[in-house]
Amino acid sequence: MDKILRINMGADGGPKATEEPLGDYSGLGGRAMTSAIVSKEVPPLCHPLGEDNKLVIAPGLLSGTAAAMSGRLSIGCKSPLTGGIKEANAGGQPSQVLARLGYAAIVLEGKPRDDIFYKVFINKDGVTITPDNSLKKLGNYDLVDKMKAEFGEKIACMSIGPAGEMKMAGASIACTDMELRPTRHAGRGGVGAVMGAKGVKVIVLDDTGMKMRASKDPEKFRAANKEFVAGLRKHPVSGEGLPKYGTNVLTNVISEAGAYPTKNFMWGSFEMCNKISGETQAQTEIDRGGVATHGCHRGCVIRCSGIYMNKDGHYLTKQPEYETVWAHGGNCGIDDLDAIAQLDRLDDDYGLDTIEMGATIAVAMEAGIAEFGDAQAAINLVKEVGKGTPLGRILGNGAEVTGRVFGVERIPTVKGQAMPAYDPRGIQGIGVTYATSTMGADHTAGYAVATNILGVGGSVDPLKPEGQVELSRNLQIATAAIDSTGMCLFIAFPLLDQPETFQALIDMLNAFYGLSLTADDVTELGKKVLSFERDFNNRAGFTAQKDRLPEFFKKEKLPPHNITFQVKDEDLDQVFNW
Amino acid sequence: MDKILRINMGADGGPKATEEPLGDYSGLGGRAMTSAIVSKEVPPLCHPLGEDNKLVIAPGLLSGTAAAMSGRLSIGCKSPLTGGIKEANAGGQPSQVLARLGYAAIVLEGKPRDDIFYKVFINKDGVTITPDNSLKKLGNYDLVDKMKAEFGEKIACMSIGPAGEMKMAGASIACTDMELRPTRHAGRGGVGAVMGAKGVKVIVLDDTGMKMRASKDPEKFRAANKEFVAGLRKHPVSGEGLPKYGTNVLTNVISEAGAYPTKNFMWGSFEMCNKISGETQAQTEIDRGGVATHGCHRGCVIRCSGIYMNKDGHYLTKQPEYETVWAHGGNCGIDDLDAIAQLDRLDDDYGLDTIEMGATIAVAMEAGIAEFGDAQAAINLVKEVGKGTPLGRILGNGAEVTGRVFGVERIPTVKGQAMPAYDPRGIQGIGVTYATSTMGADHTAGYAVATNILGVGGSVDPLKPEGQVELSRNLQIATAAIDSTGMCLFIAFPLLDQPETFQALIDMLNAFYGLSLTADDVTELGKKVLSFERDFNNRAGFTAQKDRLPEFFKKEKLPPHNITFQVKDEDLDQVFNW
Repeated sequence: MDKILRINMGADGGPKATEEPLGDYSGLGGRAMTSAIVSKEVPPLCHPLGEDNKLVIAPGLLSGTAAAMSGRLSIGCKSPLTGGIKEANAGGQPSQVLARLGYAAIVLEGKPRDDIFYKVFINKDGVTITPDNSLKKLGNYDLVDKMKAEFGEKIACMSIGPAGEMKMAGASIACTDMELRPTRHAGRGGVGAVMGAKGVKVIVLDDTGMKMRASKDPEKFRAANKEFVAGLRKHPVSGEGLPKYGTNVLTNVISEAGAYPTKNFMWGSFEMCNKISGETQAQTEIDRGGVATHGCHRGCVIRCSGIYMNKDGHYLTKQPEYETVWAHGGNCGIDDLDAIAQLDRLDDDYGLDTIEMGATIAVAMEAGIAEFGDAQAAINLVKEVGKGTPLGRILGNGAEVTGRVFGVERIPTVKGQAMPAYDPRGIQGIGVTYATSTMGADHTAGYAVATNILGVGGSVDPLKPEGQVELSRNLQIATAAIDSTGMCLFIAFPLLDQPETFQALIDMLNAFYGLSLTADDVTELGKKVLSFERDFNNRAGFTAQKDRLPEFFKKEKLPPHNITFQVKDEDLDQVFNW
Repeated sequence: MDKILRINMGADGGPKATEEPLGDYSGLGGRAMTSAIVSKEVPPLCHPLGEDNKLVIAPGLLSGTAAAMSGRLSIGCKSPLTGGIKEANAGGQPSQVLARLGYAAIVLEGKPRDDIFYKVFINKDGVTITPDNSLKKLGNYDLVDKMKAEFGEKIACMSIGPAGEMKMAGASIACTDMELRPTRHAGRGGVGAVMGAKGVKVIVLDDTGMKMRASKDPEKFRAANKEFVAGLRKHPVSGEGLPKYGTNVLTNVISEAGAYPTKNFMWGSFEMCNKISGETQAQTEIDRGGVATHGCHRGCVIRCSGIYMNKDGHYLTKQPEYETVWAHGGNCGIDDLDAIAQLDRLDDDYGLDTIEMGATIAVAMEAGIAEFGDAQAAINLVKEVGKGTPLGRILGNGAEVTGRVFGVERIPTVKGQAMPAYDPRGIQGIGVTYATSTMGADHTAGYAVATNILGVGGSVDPLKPEGQVELSRNLQIATAAIDSTGMCLFIAFPLLDQPETFQALIDMLNAFYGLSLTADDVTELGKKVLSFERDFNNRAGFTAQKDRLPEFFKKEKLPPHNITFQVKDEDLDQVFNW
């Protein structure tokens, strides 16, 4: 992982790949790498779909090693959804494979001069870029099947569906999982549209002949990894709740807490939540011959995913995540798990962010385009997106555009990005993260739900403004660092509660790279990443006014707690004042 | 004109009208009034379609008097198109009538609690607000006919068509002309959507029984007005070019100057421009029994408008303005004057900004939705807007949304508002105004075309950056002041060249109000208005980065001069540094 692969899609005579040493970017991985490159190299006022934007794909610092949970991939660019910097993060296989192929980053640059889509194949022998318009309009599932037929079963793919080709701001980049299915998505912020604008349909990785990355101190590394894994297994969230029920274990929890955004953020509890809960979902999976505990990449020990079969016992989709079940479920008043799974499958196939799509359909429902609770209508709407009809184009560009086009006032977005599955009135800490994150509304940027609701990392009353700014700040810093390691964010649960597990992570990094980092260094790394990002956004014209929730969260009281968002503007402005 | 009429559309028990003295707003008119009220009373981060936005309608300081050219109306709010402050300015009869009824402003506030559209009738006896859903979906022409049948022929109307009802960001507010036709529009920035959000379909004014506003010094006022009119008649632009050919006299001029944006700003000259020029248009009007020289309101002595008949000699629309002919003509590669007139009629009837719509259709053409030059396709697209289909909803929300939804890179907007009929590369001075105006891209905010191309107010080379910032600054200040008087902006041509005509305007103000203003006071008024507006925009989160042209104007060279926009960012930042 000592080189950067740059592919200039706009080079004279066709796309051109060059390799270069890490240079200034030495020592960076994952989000630190993507945000450093984007912040340094992309003009903040460029058009996100133009030649000056860059799509940066980076495995984490520990990706490609034997470290457990190290399979997360960061994809960065200027976002077509937010107009600011973006890092979208995905599981699946590509991160490990890319790291083993020796690349610390792939940077897609320029803009193709023709209307051709390319496939990029990377293996131990180098990079091959081939025009292949036969791939046009393929969904991710068919596309990956074609790649398997061409390149064999030992590959990992990153690809876009029709949504990315149509440069929709809700378009994702699909990463294949262990079963070589396109189920793990760098979903947020329209990274798929940027890949589409670069004319790249798929990047196929094959690490045959490459070895696992070697540690500087294998002995210490092994010991630290062992301690780390023990810590993950010991913690109730990562060792028990997530493996058993997946992320969707949260449906009942958040609805009971009165912070489950229902019918476009009208209510805080969904009375039918039991029908779509993680418990129901896991049982359904098991009953139909699916799997309720499954990893999304090799080296995962939490195994919060699963495999969801249809009523006939055939594979339909991977286990939909909590946020997906919420977005297409309670947020649209839909309580039909099979319909939600079908929506998840459609999103994955078209290459769409499930959170953005669910939030968008709820806004469309508020506009009267469909009735809340009408699952078939929701499915039809997502199919419109896949077809690229005018209505589909609107929806595929996300909740903000949809609300604007239909004159809707209640649009739950920050910086143009739809809020995920936690109402900021019922969980005020996550509201601080939504408002201030460099990414737009993003639960993963500083998951205050952990401390507000789950009692992880201490306890802060979810309904009170006190302590939320500090909580969100610390989580945003920690997350930026974790996102740079290639580690799954779910390690944060044990890390927050178990100092020895946090130390084990630091020991792994030190053993692998021959460093002597301390916890303070990790904090500094997180601050550095956030500073890159804030700096980019400032230069793109973002101000404090962008760090605000939409006004209806301050005006409408959310039942059942009948509470508005209470954190003051001037306190929000202190989040990055460390 | 000593009172403000506030109508709270969200009052308990239905809309409620109250009158109040001018208070803090004493001495203000037109744009100074609308911008003062919006800046002081509207929360900058409110949703433009929400209850906290206000729609302010204000005649100018000299409206309702015997002063020539004093019939302009200012309509202000937070713009759904730009997210910043907006003043849209219209001719027609309402300004004079409203002023004679004694109102310095109407302020529509709050939000109706039901799905009802109201008509507001104002005469000497007061204000009547009536729910009338029979008006729903009526085009402006049918609507005004209905109002005539109900209230007689001595009225003036301000109304919205279906576009405003659908809260489209391209929606205008129609003002009736001397023939009681809805042809004069407060077009820009989506003011019609805000009126729609307030649930007001039409405001009908009847000044029967009211007198012309009385001057403090009638003698001096009469003399000054006489001098003023003589000045207008003497100047070649206001006395000759505009009366004879209307604003469309510019088509040949701007195309010859190489600054006529053709096919979505791809070229600077339109080879078919002669087919749609003012000369051709005037002759066509005369040949068909229309009128080529006509005023839009009583008291107009420039008379730059006209009446356009169809091939059968029946009224089709008022004489389309230069910017309309450009927007629907050369900018879409269309050279059919009848088709352009039909588009003008449709825009007026649906209640749409012709500039925004033409720019939007060109962006849609660039996206491949229709072919450049296909007039019938353009007509069909505008009809989609009227019908409110998903495609129509996209288009009706303007060029920026349309470009975004269809993934277009070349979107000629600033602050979300489409550029008018002058390419900022061929006329660099207008580029400074587009970039820095508080209004978004707006030629009327500081019409540097006058000095860059027409040789009015001196001479500044249109192709060089030197002198453009100062020129734009001075014109923006002067315009903000003129827009506050109720005067038609076309008085600026003689004012810039003839000091005695400028003095006559000041003399009129002084005689009417018993003041002793100097030219410096007028400048101070202009600066004050701009300061209100900049302050609002700053509080809405606008920064220097919003005062920029889209990057393609800096990267693509415009033929035939093969020039990019040359004014530096740091110089743009000096426009408001006076």
